[in-house]
Amino acid sequence: MTKEIQVGLIGFGTVGSGTAQVLYEQADRITKRTGASIVLKKVADICTESLPSHFTDTQLTKDAADIINDPEIDIIIELIGGTTIAKKFILDAIAKGKHVVTANKALLSTHGMEIFSAAAKNNVEIGFEASVGGGIPLIKSLKEGLVANKILTIMGIMNGTGNYILTQMTDHGTPFDEVLKDAQEKGYAEADPTYDVEGIDTAHKLVILMTMAYGMDVRLEDVRCEGITRIEPIDIEFAKEFGYRIKLLAISRNHGEHVEARVHPTLVPEKHMLANINGAYNGFYFTGDMVDNVLLYGQGAGMMPTGSAVAADVVDIARNIMHNSINRVPSLSYLPDQIQPRRITPMENIRCPYYFRFSTLDKPGVLSKISGILSKYDISIESVIQKSRKMKGSVPIVMHTYEAQEDAVEKALEEINALETTTAETVKIRVLVDDEE
Amino acid sequence: MTKEIQVGLIGFGTVGSGTAQVLYEQADRITKRTGASIVLKKVADICTESLPSHFTDTQLTKDAADIINDPEIDIIIELIGGTTIAKKFILDAIAKGKHVVTANKALLSTHGMEIFSAAAKNNVEIGFEASVGGGIPLIKSLKEGLVANKILTIMGIMNGTGNYILTQMTDHGTPFDEVLKDAQEKGYAEADPTYDVEGIDTAHKLVILMTMAYGMDVRLEDVRCEGITRIEPIDIEFAKEFGYRIKLLAISRNHGEHVEARVHPTLVPEKHMLANINGAYNGFYFTGDMVDNVLLYGQGAGMMPTGSAVAADVVDIARNIMHNSINRVPSLSYLPDQIQPRRITPMENIRCPYYFRFSTLDKPGVLSKISGILSKYDISIESVIQKSRKMKGSVPIVMHTYEAQEDAVEKALEEINALETTTAETVKIRVLVDDEE
Repeated sequence: MTKEIQVGLIGFGTVGSGTAQVLYEQADRITKRTGASIVLKKVADICTESLPSHFTDTQLTKDAADIINDPEIDIIIELIGGTTIAKKFILDAIAKGKHVVTANKALLSTHGMEIFSAAAKNNVEIGFEASVGGGIPLIKSLKEGLVANKILTIMGIMNGTGNYILTQMTDHGTPFDEVLKDAQEKGYAEADPTYDVEGIDTAHKLVILMTMAYGMDVRLEDVRCEGITRIEPIDIEFAKEFGYRIKLLAISRNHGEHVEARVHPTLVPEKHMLANINGAYNGFYFTGDMVDNVLLYGQGAGMMPTGSAVAADVVDIARNIMHNSINRVPSLSYLPDQIQPRRITPMENIRCPYYFRFSTLDKPGVLSKISGILSKYDISIESVIQKSRKMKGSVPIVMHTYEAQEDAVEKALEEINALETTTAETVKIRVLVDDEE
Repeated sequence: MTKEIQVGLIGFGTVGSGTAQVLYEQADRITKRTGASIVLKKVADICTESLPSHFTDTQLTKDAADIINDPEIDIIIELIGGTTIAKKFILDAIAKGKHVVTANKALLSTHGMEIFSAAAKNNVEIGFEASVGGGIPLIKSLKEGLVANKILTIMGIMNGTGNYILTQMTDHGTPFDEVLKDAQEKGYAEADPTYDVEGIDTAHKLVILMTMAYGMDVRLEDVRCEGITRIEPIDIEFAKEFGYRIKLLAISRNHGEHVEARVHPTLVPEKHMLANINGAYNGFYFTGDMVDNVLLYGQGAGMMPTGSAVAADVVDIARNIMHNSINRVPSLSYLPDQIQPRRITPMENIRCPYYFRFSTLDKPGVLSKISGILSKYDISIESVIQKSRKMKGSVPIVMHTYEAQEDAVEKALEEINALETTTAETVKIRVLVDDEE
């Protein structure tokens, strides 16, 4: 009676073995919820010599083609990552009429359109819940739960490593380099942390979310990206005095004709939900025109949470196979012919309040000179902190401004940085306005 | 080319008119995402004399039977509420082979099994995303996104009115009665606030979530329910000193053989996400064995957010009509024959830390007597606050205990309340242990 759905898994690393384990442990539960039995028929991995002994019915191969060419296999799970071989395997699988489930955000955010149109042409599905936010069911929420909403804003803490580092800096006042080293020793951060700390991983995820939320053809190079490597404990401390936490946020606002797409450190009001997401947790904050603000929060990575998302996609596709309802929900949430390019808001047109930390000589008239320049560019100051605490022979002047425009800010800072009394480049961090009240 | 799905709406109150508005405003978007056109053919309401003029293709009737008996209508939206006529309309609609979408938590938590089994028998679907958490897509997340998880814990702030009142009390130190009166004047609380402030509305929602999360036949009377009417600003203040916020939580822990089901005011550690959910917002916190902790947060009520959830259910069913895949996902997330009764953990077996506020005469030896009784019942004290601030001729002694068992606590408090030095009944509030770190 129970229908069998055969699955093949390519890549048996952390997420791959987690996924296999989820499918194994939850097999009975999945059958009780679907009437189907998900059978992991084959695993392909070049480095694995044997599978854990409880996978009695699963064959191990070194050749992904053994899976891609197996006519019994309906769904292929790609978990090797990267944008070269993974892409080839996925396109081969699609060409063979297989459905694909993947966690590969780097691939989808750079070659997504090619993959999704190949899938549409071959009438197969691409499941990618695991590519953003680990096990948090946010792709499904955007595609289905919020189907009757124009998404006005996407914001989020989308990288656990970056958030862990900022949380440690905030809680203990430890400098970035020290926290990073410690995180690397503990295995929380990669040996090459560039993707995490420079915001690139976050940008990958933002591209995927924007594509779906807006029905838009977005490219990675559309996202303006600044990392957290230049954040100092002193900025975190001043931010606290103003009532803010510093978080690495992805932000996209939908202005209709054009949309914002940016990743950068941000001062978040301490009462805002995003300010309270700590450690390796992720939070995705959507504003819909009907539903208002929604936050989805959880482990944004990890073996079992990500495996949970992969398994959910496999079950979703299995249901469609059983009911003969493939592409019941379009992979990108809008029908393929509705996906349109849209203009990206130029960064110089962004408007928000700003945090500035000026490093200046401790001389009379400096504050007046700085405020004069700001005022010339229509930048109004909401509050100032000036302390005579010396840093490297200079004093910090810290300001929180009212909303200003990025290009005016750039020009003002250029003038201020050129002043004789300025001893180091001004630190500039954008500020989030609280919309929850 | 575009398939038309005809819908009828019974009840044109706040949520009903919000739903009609969502379907109207999002019609084009829904078509771009589904290829279907959702047509609101008829609205039934006994008090409405005319529909807003932009609903040019919608007929208004006073008789719900005009909708239930219309052979062209596939989906009936029930938004009149209550457990009598609404039940009849829903069962009539099911008998006519119509799919039903409802926000009626009171009905589903008391007569849910009857309705769901009638639906299963007639092979129609019941959508109820709007019955819990307004527009937050949490039912879909539990049924599909977390499909490969044993749900270990359900916790949540599920009532916006109650949370608004507690937030006001916390922020301004205002007593309960005063905040309630103000909330009633502003329209945030009903004239009869019993359901909201006594936790009954929260219990309704917990029943629905437990049913789905565990595949379990739960009844409203299974939930032990305590409200917030006896919380005083002084308790909120002492809780703050211990590092906690007081929230009205629904809590269910899955112990396998038996499950907890309770609603009561709770001290929540101030760093926990649930402690930071303020005002009328709701938060639903699930722990799955694979995915770990997930929080879903948003507006738990309101015309447009709830309309957003109703519309999402309508779209979901419309997709199934188009693809001939009705009951692709079982309404209660487990197949009907998998829904089982399960034992409820007796309240006396609950274990957690406790907050006590004793009201005693300001005499020597009182603290020692109280701690002696607690110790006799194996209740260990983690910290004590004793201040000589007089309240109604007596002094408060406030304690935060380590984990203790409810029946031991009951017995200890009975003895302490009977002491000659005790001047008022002891206030007891359960404490949540932080599992996020």
